[in-house]
Amino acid sequence: MPDSKTNLSMRPLSMPIEEAMRTQRSIRRLLPDPVDDALLLHLIELAFQAPVGGNRQNLEFLIVRERAVKARMARLNRVAWGSYGRIWRLFARNDPKTLRTMDAVSWAADHYEEIPALVIPCLRWTSYGPIVSGVRLPFPDFYAAIYYGSAFPAIQNFLLAARAAGLGASLTVMPLWSTLLARRALGLPPWTSPIAVIPVGWPRGRYGPTTRKPVGDVVHVDRYGNRPYQGHDAEETHPRNA
Amino acid sequence: MPDSKTNLSMRPLSMPIEEAMRTQRSIRRLLPDPVDDALLLHLIELAFQAPVGGNRQNLEFLIVRERAVKARMARLNRVAWGSYGRIWRLFARNDPKTLRTMDAVSWAADHYEEIPALVIPCLRWTSYGPIVSGVRLPFPDFYAAIYYGSAFPAIQNFLLAARAAGLGASLTVMPLWSTLLARRALGLPPWTSPIAVIPVGWPRGRYGPTTRKPVGDVVHVDRYGNRPYQGHDAEETHPRNA
Repeated sequence: MPDSKTNLSMRPLSMPIEEAMRTQRSIRRLLPDPVDDALLLHLIELAFQAPVGGNRQNLEFLIVRERAVKARMARLNRVAWGSYGRIWRLFARNDPKTLRTMDAVSWAADHYEEIPALVIPCLRWTSYGPIVSGVRLPFPDFYAAIYYGSAFPAIQNFLLAARAAGLGASLTVMPLWSTLLARRALGLPPWTSPIAVIPVGWPRGRYGPTTRKPVGDVVHVDRYGNRPYQGHDAEETHPRNA
Repeated sequence: MPDSKTNLSMRPLSMPIEEAMRTQRSIRRLLPDPVDDALLLHLIELAFQAPVGGNRQNLEFLIVRERAVKARMARLNRVAWGSYGRIWRLFARNDPKTLRTMDAVSWAADHYEEIPALVIPCLRWTSYGPIVSGVRLPFPDFYAAIYYGSAFPAIQNFLLAARAAGLGASLTVMPLWSTLLARRALGLPPWTSPIAVIPVGWPRGRYGPTTRKPVGDVVHVDRYGNRPYQGHDAEETHPRNA
């Protein structure tokens, strides 16, 4: 599909928003073919439109293409996956759907160095909460929500835009199990923390609908436990369909 | 605009994704006119398509319409805004753009009880990190990223979908400055934490483009500080435009 790989960044992404949301999924099996910086910049520009706490614009993006840096992240990822993955596989041993996901995670761990680009959103947190010589003190929930809430909306914009561009991507945090080691592997200064790692490349797999509980099961009205739409999907709640 | 208020939930949202992202902004001045549950369910269904850590699907949504509950949240919001707002206004006294934002935040604080609906995403965190009798111990960055990273992508989907539906919304955390008081005001059980409050209604204001730094200023390649695209917007990084 050479056509979808060229000049995408020059055209605004035109996929209808609902289609993008309903067919977004983690694409972990990626081709080694290169991805244009211009396209990544386009996606990051869209990511950067997302809301941030107090309009601080403290989010930065590191694009990692260099094999040596990717190899360091691959090692961190394998350490975490080697222990966490084993436990997870045990818990999920009777759940074929989760086991399929885990196979894809394993595949990515095995091919980490060949991923064309890692996009790593980072927060400069000098203006978030109390800091003592580069070490952020544990902050209350409220601050944590402002902090992470200034990064993950942008990350979701990036993932949706990647989906609309036909580029494979997934949201991971496993290589960041130690902020200290991750910061060292990436050469980040102490005032910047990596928030997630998004491996990006042209997909081997395909995008498609995800499965979710009926929305009525997770919606409470006025008080917790009052679920008038339980078991219903959105369409069924409309008066004309009820 | 009665037309845009009816049966929206029956049609898939068709706004091109890039347009939605580039014109999303916080709409805080809202009309008191009611918003259909069917439309909110539609937006929440789209929110729920976003990625969650380990596919846990632990996110829930509380829709608050009851005036008494809104009044309790209004009080919490005013307590925080009364102190934080004063400090913020002092720091921003020479920044007209921030002062305009603050006027909108003040307007919302003054009219909180008339907001047609508060949508409050909550996380059941029984499967996140160590818990001792209902109190979550401070968890490391890694867990916090999985936790908040399971809510804010969905929140961003909700905000984008609201924008595509022409509905006004904004991402706030101020009424949640005390998780304990907020949980009590909302009647939430101890195993569920409110993550954000999204006031929703038909807009008095308009959506439109936001201002951001050039994307090249926030993109580092391979190592922190290496910013080959500094000062450039996405289009200018393309070979044909360079």
